[in-house]
Formats: sequence, structure tokens, C-alpha cells
Amino acid sequence: MYRTHTCGELRLKDVNKEVRLAGWVQTIRKFGSITFIDLRDRYGITQLLFNEKLTEELDKNPLGREFVVQVKGTVSERSNKNPNIPTGDIEINVSEYRVLNKSAVPPFTIQDDTDGGDDLRMKYRFLDLRRNPVKKNLELRYAVNRATRNYLYENGFVDIETPFLIKSTPEGARDFVVPSRMNPGEFYALPQSPQTFKQLLMVSGYDRYYQIVKCFRDEDLRADRQPEFTQIDCEMSFVEQEDILQMFEGLIKYIFKEVKNIDYTEPVERMSWEDAMWNYGNDKPDIRFDMKVKNLKSENKIFLETLKQTEFAVFNEAETIVAISVPGCSDYSRKQTDELVEWVKRPQIGMKGLAFIKVNNDGTLKSSFDKFFNESQLKDFASFCDSKPGDLILILAGKEERTRKAISDLRLYMADRLGLRKADEYKLLWVLDFPLFEYDEESNRWVARHHPFTSPKPEDIQVMINNNPLIENSEKYLEHPYSKIKANAYDMVLNGNEIGGGSIRIFQRDLQEKMFAALGMSKEEAQHKFGFLLGAFEYGAPPHGGIAFGFDRLCAILGGSESIRDFIAFPKNNSGRDVMIDAPSTIDEKQLDELQIKLDLK
Amino acid sequence: MYRTHTCGELRLKDVNKEVRLAGWVQTIRKFGSITFIDLRDRYGITQLLFNEKLTEELDKNPLGREFVVQVKGTVSERSNKNPNIPTGDIEINVSEYRVLNKSAVPPFTIQDDTDGGDDLRMKYRFLDLRRNPVKKNLELRYAVNRATRNYLYENGFVDIETPFLIKSTPEGARDFVVPSRMNPGEFYALPQSPQTFKQLLMVSGYDRYYQIVKCFRDEDLRADRQPEFTQIDCEMSFVEQEDILQMFEGLIKYIFKEVKNIDYTEPVERMSWEDAMWNYGNDKPDIRFDMKVKNLKSENKIFLETLKQTEFAVFNEAETIVAISVPGCSDYSRKQTDELVEWVKRPQIGMKGLAFIKVNNDGTLKSSFDKFFNESQLKDFASFCDSKPGDLILILAGKEERTRKAISDLRLYMADRLGLRKADEYKLLWVLDFPLFEYDEESNRWVARHHPFTSPKPEDIQVMINNNPLIENSEKYLEHPYSKIKANAYDMVLNGNEIGGGSIRIFQRDLQEKMFAALGMSKEEAQHKFGFLLGAFEYGAPPHGGIAFGFDRLCAILGGSESIRDFIAFPKNNSGRDVMIDAPSTIDEKQLDELQIKLDLK
Repeated sequence: MYRTHTCGELRLKDVNKEVRLAGWVQTIRKFGSITFIDLRDRYGITQLLFNEKLTEELDKNPLGREFVVQVKGTVSERSNKNPNIPTGDIEINVSEYRVLNKSAVPPFTIQDDTDGGDDLRMKYRFLDLRRNPVKKNLELRYAVNRATRNYLYENGFVDIETPFLIKSTPEGARDFVVPSRMNPGEFYALPQSPQTFKQLLMVSGYDRYYQIVKCFRDEDLRADRQPEFTQIDCEMSFVEQEDILQMFEGLIKYIFKEVKNIDYTEPVERMSWEDAMWNYGNDKPDIRFDMKVKNLKSENKIFLETLKQTEFAVFNEAETIVAISVPGCSDYSRKQTDELVEWVKRPQIGMKGLAFIKVNNDGTLKSSFDKFFNESQLKDFASFCDSKPGDLILILAGKEERTRKAISDLRLYMADRLGLRKADEYKLLWVLDFPLFEYDEESNRWVARHHPFTSPKPEDIQVMINNNPLIENSEKYLEHPYSKIKANAYDMVLNGNEIGGGSIRIFQRDLQEKMFAALGMSKEEAQHKFGFLLGAFEYGAPPHGGIAFGFDRLCAILGGSESIRDFIAFPKNNSGRDVMIDAPSTIDEKQLDELQIKLDLK
Repeated sequence: MYRTHTCGELRLKDVNKEVRLAGWVQTIRKFGSITFIDLRDRYGITQLLFNEKLTEELDKNPLGREFVVQVKGTVSERSNKNPNIPTGDIEINVSEYRVLNKSAVPPFTIQDDTDGGDDLRMKYRFLDLRRNPVKKNLELRYAVNRATRNYLYENGFVDIETPFLIKSTPEGARDFVVPSRMNPGEFYALPQSPQTFKQLLMVSGYDRYYQIVKCFRDEDLRADRQPEFTQIDCEMSFVEQEDILQMFEGLIKYIFKEVKNIDYTEPVERMSWEDAMWNYGNDKPDIRFDMKVKNLKSENKIFLETLKQTEFAVFNEAETIVAISVPGCSDYSRKQTDELVEWVKRPQIGMKGLAFIKVNNDGTLKSSFDKFFNESQLKDFASFCDSKPGDLILILAGKEERTRKAISDLRLYMADRLGLRKADEYKLLWVLDFPLFEYDEESNRWVARHHPFTSPKPEDIQVMINNNPLIENSEKYLEHPYSKIKANAYDMVLNGNEIGGGSIRIFQRDLQEKMFAALGMSKEEAQHKFGFLLGAFEYGAPPHGGIAFGFDRLCAILGGSESIRDFIAFPKNNSGRDVMIDAPSTIDEKQLDELQIKLDLK
């Protein structure tokens, strides 16, 4: 036996016990003729006292940081207690020690705040993982995992493993594929999600299924995407949207309680997709603070009368004008407003400029476009924005889509500046009533906003079945009945991040076929790719629906971080590389040969 | 809401309640002017009573097997109770019903004993999964999963996900590879096990790791192999073999209790690999029954003096003679012994013949080789075999390896005939002290019996370090000191099946390098493939070891089956195909193009 206790375990009550510990050397402090060593393991840190004689030995064969040692000794009370650690009342009076393994000097310090840069830490991830903040993240991840499993077990869900070597049916994202040696010329695909399998399990009558499961997407990676990621994947039979919302806000509240000890007792807010877009400029609003977006001119024309009386071309010629009232910022200096103008001009935001109105505390108004608007028109403006004295109204004008995105970003940016996005405050939100289809300009056809298995709202099913999906006039796609169809889908949003999404599924063969046709798939193609699902729907498929949560992101948000990479033990970088093991890499000619493929490098 | 209760829930106490149920039509029995329907869901079966009026409706629009229906009605007491099902006391007096989905006639019956053959059932796996025995298997699988997670949680293990897109380092088995689009010409590999990652987690100080995780092996599939399979994968730091054995026999006993309600209180037997081979002819003996193998002539020569006095060429010229004493079979007829002779001559067994001695109850002996052995020699033989009156001694002679395997198979076959392998009896066994290396004739070098990360026994480390692995005389490889080195490895055997195996790992860079060298790997190759691990060992790697259990097999054995396929929701067939979704399949030219590979079919 290497140890009788861990390094986090011993207390005053253990004084005088003979113990054995093993762990890593965290620090070495020589203090005259004796030496103190902090010994670390997963569970904590214990101070070791090496007496004069042992210190002489240490002088001959010095220990170093991260050496692995085993010690024997007696627990004794410390004269100089450390109230910051649970073992701070005691130390080990070492009688014997043994070096189990040496350590080279680590390329960065194993401390909470390390001196290692991102690249170095990724290359030596096994050392980075020793650091407390990373360890805490992985422990939190395990806690979320356990809470999820316990809640779903209590609610009758069964964990059923679905296959990883499946069939390539590239819809939205690209599949990773796996050449089959036993079936030359054929490939498996790695699942982008277990979607069709969980639906088959509903057809099979399993009623409540879940899995915490790896999924794969061969996409160009943005900062916070990984080629492999983990989902909490769930499906239920004989349910309507309401049943799902209840069940899974229950899950997240349970996780809050178990993992963060937060009682989230208030009901989860709900918002239609249209309201989200209209009032927040995006479909995953952060509702920890208000600062709603006001729409002064857009397809839904509201502020038009006032605008007509002015001659401000920037406004009059814009497709869209949107504004937010930022509380308490009417006293912003020229320098501060200039900063904001620069901020919106950055390429990530891409606006040409920013107009503003200061709603001063004394009741006066001062705008950046006083030339064009008189006092009364400015008042109209401010009143339309529900502004209060002290507010700074920020206004963006331009093309609809970009401007809407920009005001949404600006809203979050201002909230950050004002400290309104509190790390310890959590606000859940259901976004509902998404459009079923999006229009794809390039191919002049419909694409599924969620995925091809999402059901329209019950009242829209006939609209879908009774109309030809063909868009005859691409200019007027908005007039096609399909553009009005709402999906029976829902997203869960936490603090402005989409953490989960799902839908009630199509479970009738004819409706599913209509959907495939609407997406431009021929009958043959639909049969080739999804024949098994269409077939299954013929043998008594029950109504069903489900949801999937992005497990990495959920953990990151609960851990107070924006980066999922910090919550994955062995993440990949932005080129999809694991720089520690150096993968991907070339493979042997023999392997290619056996797979009957060859490289075709361009 | 589709239902107020499930089909397994209602009891006498619910009589007179208005309820709504939804499920599948299991059976329809018309009884004069009324109709009884058994409605099924995951939770059970409830009888529905359709009155005269509703029966008329049914006549017009008949329901069929596996239709999905929703009914409203009142719970009432049955006059004709069915004690075989939990809901057998009640039925639902249906007032309204609605067909939620129709069903074509299933290609086989959804019954415990189905009329569907294997191929049909696999093609329509979503229907096969509706059958009770399959459902029970998957429920058992979930129970084993939960018990495992709970035990490991209680014991301080942390579930940490390791990556699926890793590096190809083909050692024993072939890797499945995944072409990387972002890194043309390079490939990921799917993990054959998380071996190196879990070792890195030990280097990182995570101390106790586990995962229930999919692994992949591109092997030619035998009857009971799957290209993707599930492992319970565990690793611990600061442990010796004894710590691991204790911890994981604890796990299996916990699973027995939780899943089968079996108190496995006796200690788990332990046996050296050599004893297993010697006494049972294989390294995973079924010890539910005795019938040990007696070695009459082999490398370890024992029975030689007696043999010398006889002139039976079959024995005298054989490399090996082995025997088992089968209790209570001395009265086997000529027909029965002929059957056994035929059995050992089958190609799977491949022996030329079978000799036997009947140790009759009256004390006489009768052998199939009376010509060559006199009574006294037969007595010698029987006494050497510890035979008792009533035993039938079965004797095989031939080449060492084949004969040893044959007697092992024969032992199991006879036990099956005699009903000694009881389905409800469970016997665990640790097999220990494996050889570290096996000799590979073809390349005249050593291969790792377990894997290249297994440590030799502490007392053999110096033997390994101080000797050159090179085998100068291939005839005399047994004289090389490496052939004597024992591994610090252990297998767990349940009823004659290996359910898990593991080892104490090498954690010193120099020893690991020596191991790679012993396996014929050049320094460069070792660095290319495992540089990250060798590097990690330089930064304070702790002593560690672990184990992995074959989750599919464990579930199958606990479920009383020999076939893992019955315990996997969506298994593949022997050519690695999923015949339901028809995977693998061809992929688009565009996909190949993006991956910069092309087919090279022979």
C-alpha cells in the first residue's frame, strides 16, 4: 500500500497517528536546518516537516517541484496554522521518505495563475490538468454529469447507447467519415447526433431515452467549436411541447441545485422567436438585464411619421433603424461616445457609424444629429424609446440583418461595461415558435431551420401538406405559405447562450416525405438516406419529441467561463489538432492499402 | 397531454378513475358484440374494453396489431382477472378512442418467442426492440451501467471523457481511421481503448478515473465481436495489484447485488496463469465445476514411467497426453462414446481420436486401448487421474497447444452435457501472473501479451532492464530470460468468460523505452507514436494501474446469454454492417474531394 491517507484528509483529530502519504512536491521551503514541503494530490495539500537529519539527505539528493514522493511519519499539530487549507492545522513529522519518480522542471508553473501561454499549456496538457482551476472545471463537469443522470433516472429515462459507426447523410454540417476495410469503397460516418436512432427507439416503445454522448461535426472551427463535442441527448414519447418544457426546465433547475446549490424556483420565462428577434435583435437574448431594442424603422414600420418630417439621410435611407436606451450614461464624455463609435465600426460589427441622444437629467436632450432633428422630434424619439432621464440612447441604422445583429452585440457590450451581466446570476429562457423553414437564396429553396425531423405546429400541418414547396418567384419568397409555418421547436437559453434545443418530431411517413421534398430531396434520395426511418414510421410510430443540450457549453456557463475548451480534458485547437499527441497524423501505406483508398492531395 | 397513466400502472385502487392511456395494440379479441384490446407500452399491458357502440366503429375502421391508439375511459374491476400481469385486476371501459398512427403488419410477431429469423429481426431492429426479451436485456444493461457508476462514485472515481479522434498507433489490432479535411493527407484514429489518455490523467494527478466508453477495433469479426464495443475503463494511482483486485472485485459484487440481488460474499478465488493452463487447459477456466485436466505427458513429464512400459504408439509418440475424469459417465454406451469421438474429430476441435477408460462402479476398468494397457497400468492411469468409481476418463493425445485447447473444450462440453454450468450460479476468478511477453515466431521477436504499458513484476524489472531483448537462437527462445518475466497483470473471469483485464503500468521513462525496444520498435518509432507519453513520464508520473471490463459481455453473462449482440441496441452483423440503416455505404464524390482522398479498389 502506497498510502494510508490522501493529502486532503488529515485533521487535528489525527495527531500522533502513524501515516503514509504519497503525492507531488508543490513547494520546498528550507528553514534553517529543517525543510517544509507541501505535498499535493487530487484531494489537497499537506505540509511535511523534514527534520535536520532528513534535510541533510535532501541536501545531498535534492527534491524538485513535481517530484513524486512517498513519506512515512507522524501527524502533529502545527504551531503556525494555515487557516486557508483544510489540513492547515497539522503537519507530518517525516521519519522516512522515498522518491517514487523524478520530475524535470515543468515548462510552466503549476499554479492557479500559470505563466504558461495557451500553446504551451495545450502541448503539455497533462501538466495543465494538474492546475487547480482546470481540475475544478473537470470536477464540475462530473457533477453536472451525475446530476443529469440522477434526474433522468428518477424520471424514468433509460440510457441506451446508439452506434458511432453509422451512415453518412450530410444535411447541414459535414460528416466525419470512416473507410470500411471489410466493405471496400464504402464508408461509415460518425454521428452528428443520435437523432434518427433516438427516434427509432421511440418507435420501439422505449418511451424515455437519454444519453450523454459524443457527437462529431467536420466544420471549420471557430474559437469555441470542437470537432467532437458532448450532448445530453433526450427523447420522449406521447408528449407535446409543454411536457418537454416542464421536464427539462426541471432538469436544469435540478442541476443548479445539485451543482451550484442555487434554488431556481421562479418559473422559466418564455418568449416567441419573433419577440426575441424584435426586442433583443437575436434568438438567444440575455434577459438578466432589460435594455430592449426599439425598432424605429424596419419591415414593420413604426416610427415612420416622425422620420418623414426630418431630412437625415442616414436615417431616411436606412432599411432599419434600431435603438437601445442605456441607463445612467447620459453624462458620457465626447471621448466615451467616440469610443462607442469606434467600437461599432470594428469589422466584427461592421456599422458605418453610431448616432446617440443624451437624455439629460435636467430634461434637455442632446443628440449627435441635432442638425436634422429639432427638440420636439428628439423628444418623440426618446419617448418612443421609453427613455428615462439619465439614459443614453444609442442608435444604429443600415441593412436589416447586419444592423439587428450589431444592436444586439452593442446591447451586450454596454451591459458588460455597466456590469449588468453578473457571473453569479442565472436567467433561463425558453425561445419558442421558430419558423420551420429558412429561405436559401443560393439554391432558391427551403432549408430546415432546426432539422428535417421537426414537426410544424399542429395548426400548420395542413398548410405544409396542401401547398407545393416550390418557390416560383424568388423575390417574393416571403409570400409563400411555407415562410409562415411555425416549427414545434424550442431552444433553452441561459444568460444569452443557447444551451439546448429540440422539437416535437414528425412521426407520420407522409408528412416526413413532404418535408424531405420541401428541402429539395428527391424521392430516391430520401429513400436512400432515410428509408429506414420512413419505413419505421409505417409500423406504429408514436408521437414523440426531444431535446439535446450542449454539455460542454452548459458546463462552461455553470463554471463561469465562455470557453468550452477549459471544460474538456483533451481539447483540440482551431485546426482540429491535438497538439499534445500530435493528431491527426500520417498513416502507413499499408493501412491505406488495406482500406483501398489513396491520397489525392491538391 | 396524451395520457394520465402508463399501461403498467393502474390497479384495483384506481377503479372508477377517468384515465387516458396511449400505446400499441398488442392483441384484439372480439367477443360477441364487444371487443377486448390489450394495449402495450414500455411499462406493461392494460386491457381495454370497447362496448357495443365502439365495437361497431371498430368494425368500420378496424384496428390492427401495433396500431398506436389513445383512449379515454374509466377504470373498472375485471370479472375475469389475469393474475399473470400486474394490471390484471382491472380494465378500461373505453368511452373515446383515437388512432394516433397506423401500422402495417409487422414482418414478424412482436412476442417473446418471435417467428422472425436473425436477418429479418436485424433489418427491422426497431420492431425487434419492442419484444420483451430484448427490452429486458437493454434494461439490464442500464442497471449494470447505473450500478457501476454509483459504486465508482462512492469510491472516489471521476468520470472524465477522453477524445475519440486520436492518433493511429497500430499495435495489435487495426485502427479505424478518419481522414482529416482540415489537415489533408492526415488521419485521426478511433480509440481501441483510452489507454494512454487514462495514464496521462494519472500523471495529471486525477488519482481515480473511470469511463463507460465506446472503443473501436477494425478486426475481422467473429461471431461474438463487434467493431464498436463498450468498456468500463478504470485507472488508479498509488496502487499495487492488491489494491486493484480489492476495488474491482468489490465492483462486480456490487453489480451482482444491485442487478441480480445476489450476495456474492465469498472471497474471489485467485489462480496463477500457469495453474489455469495446467489444470484447465486455458486461461479463463470455468470453476463452477471441478473436472480438472490431468497432464500425463507434456513438457512437464509426469506419467512417463508408466507410459514407458506400454506400447501404445498414439500415447508414446504424442507430445502431450491430457485427461479429464467425468463423474457418473462410466456407464456410457458404445453409441455415447462414439458420439464423443466424433465430437473431438470435428474440425473446430481437430483431434484424431479420443481414448477413454471406464472406471466401473464394481471396481473393474475398461478402456478403449485394452490391447496396450494391462489392468495394473489402467489402475495406475486412473489413480493418477484421481478417478472415482463411476468416472469416465477421457484422454486426448497430440501436439501440445491443440491438445490442451481440445481438452479444455471437451471439459466444457461434458459439463454442459451434465448440466454442471448452471445459468444461475456465478463464480468469479482472478487469473494472475501472466507472462509479460509472448514469442512471435514469424518475426522472431517478443510481443506484449497484454499491451506495451504493462509493468513486469517488481522482481523482474531488473531482468528486463539488464538483458538484451534480442533472440539469437529462435529454437531456444524459451531459454531467453524474457520468456520467464511475469507481468503485473490480472484478468477477471466469470463462469469461464474473461470479463475484464488490466495491469499495473510502467511509469518510468527508461523502462517504457526498454519495453518498446523489446517489442522491436526503433527509438524514432517509439518517439513518433508515444512521444507524448514518454514525455509525460518525465514530469512526475505516479505509480498507477487499472483495468477495463468488457461491458457488452458482462451484461450478456449477467443476462444469461452468450451473445453480446442481444445486449446492444443497434448491433452490426459479421461483415460490420448495420443492415437496418444500410451502413457503411458509398459517399458523394464531393465528400471524397474535400477529404483529398480517392478510392483505390482492387
